[in-house]
Amino acid sequence: MALIQPLEWRYATKKFDASKKLSAGQLENLLDAVRLAPSSFGLQHYRILVIEDAGLREQLKAAAYNQSQITDASQLIVFAAETKINEAYVEKYVDLLAKERNTERANLEPFEKTMIATVNHRAEDQRVAWAHKQAYLALGVLLTAAAEAGIDACPMEGFEAGKFDEILGLSEKGLTATVIAPIGFRAEDDAYAHFAKVRKPKEELFIRL
Amino acid sequence: MALIQPLEWRYATKKFDASKKLSAGQLENLLDAVRLAPSSFGLQHYRILVIEDAGLREQLKAAAYNQSQITDASQLIVFAAETKINEAYVEKYVDLLAKERNTERANLEPFEKTMIATVNHRAEDQRVAWAHKQAYLALGVLLTAAAEAGIDACPMEGFEAGKFDEILGLSEKGLTATVIAPIGFRAEDDAYAHFAKVRKPKEELFIRL
Repeated sequence: MALIQPLEWRYATKKFDASKKLSAGQLENLLDAVRLAPSSFGLQHYRILVIEDAGLREQLKAAAYNQSQITDASQLIVFAAETKINEAYVEKYVDLLAKERNTERANLEPFEKTMIATVNHRAEDQRVAWAHKQAYLALGVLLTAAAEAGIDACPMEGFEAGKFDEILGLSEKGLTATVIAPIGFRAEDDAYAHFAKVRKPKEELFIRL
Repeated sequence: MALIQPLEWRYATKKFDASKKLSAGQLENLLDAVRLAPSSFGLQHYRILVIEDAGLREQLKAAAYNQSQITDASQLIVFAAETKINEAYVEKYVDLLAKERNTERANLEPFEKTMIATVNHRAEDQRVAWAHKQAYLALGVLLTAAAEAGIDACPMEGFEAGKFDEILGLSEKGLTATVIAPIGFRAEDDAYAHFAKVRKPKEELFIRL
């Protein structure tokens, strides 16, 4: 299992080296990986903001308890859930499917009906909760892929989602912030890098039946 | 980026080869990887069931629209969120932290207070929603690690969580089913293996600022 060592190496980086930036290739590879994250029905119920703009990051930092990772990291990744998951959203996805799979749209109708029934079965807040969960799955892929590539990251829930929505204009895009992750490279003096990684013992985490 | 090819290779496996099982080493390595998944504060707000028992899987299949992956896969993984995230849960985690980091418990008090304040700030259903999201993050790690190791998986939301809780006795353990993933190896004739993987184009998924 080639990923054990990278997953041991990674940690929630508290202090980034602001002078170190991902190369364009590193960034695109990482985004290529997270783009491949699976999601329920393949709907990818979220968008992913990749923020470099310094002024914007200063504003976001103020909405994230002034945590320095926001501005010191190479990029700030913001996962934002779709808030308008409806028939039109599904139809657009089926259009894409038909095109990419080079098939008649009619062949996809049973699948489309299943998806629309699933969507319609859920209240609007449940759809958004559903989307948030898919974004967390994608965050898991991002963090694993970053670790494998030797890129540091800090998954963070400690920010004011409402303010992020406002600063980034997410509401008018039909989005709301889920979770964020600055990415970049750890500062040499980040004490957190040296803390032992603590996880539940296997016998407490896993239940074998 | 060594993970692009595995992430392209993987797909939601609809038909497993029931004769192919993970070796003990493959399974333990995969569990070691998912154990390293990060979670909010490191609380690992979930447990992970690893189910081989055939009778149990027959029952679960009936609660999952009779999808054959449940019984044909090598193992069925069930992520289950903690429903009792309270001060005692946090205290137990701080005990583990103090032991693993070989530090006085008193040194961890500020962190403990932050966690307890976060927990107490949330209503019980919000805590469970929080736990479900952490489980999705871990699912993302599982699926990526499985792909890297050439192990197939099928992330599934299509099951009756209430029935899963009942069959697996989760409620009395303070747990509730989040999401499931049979793992194993694809059947040679799974038509789904050959469908083009469809994802939003990068310019539609990512917003660059």
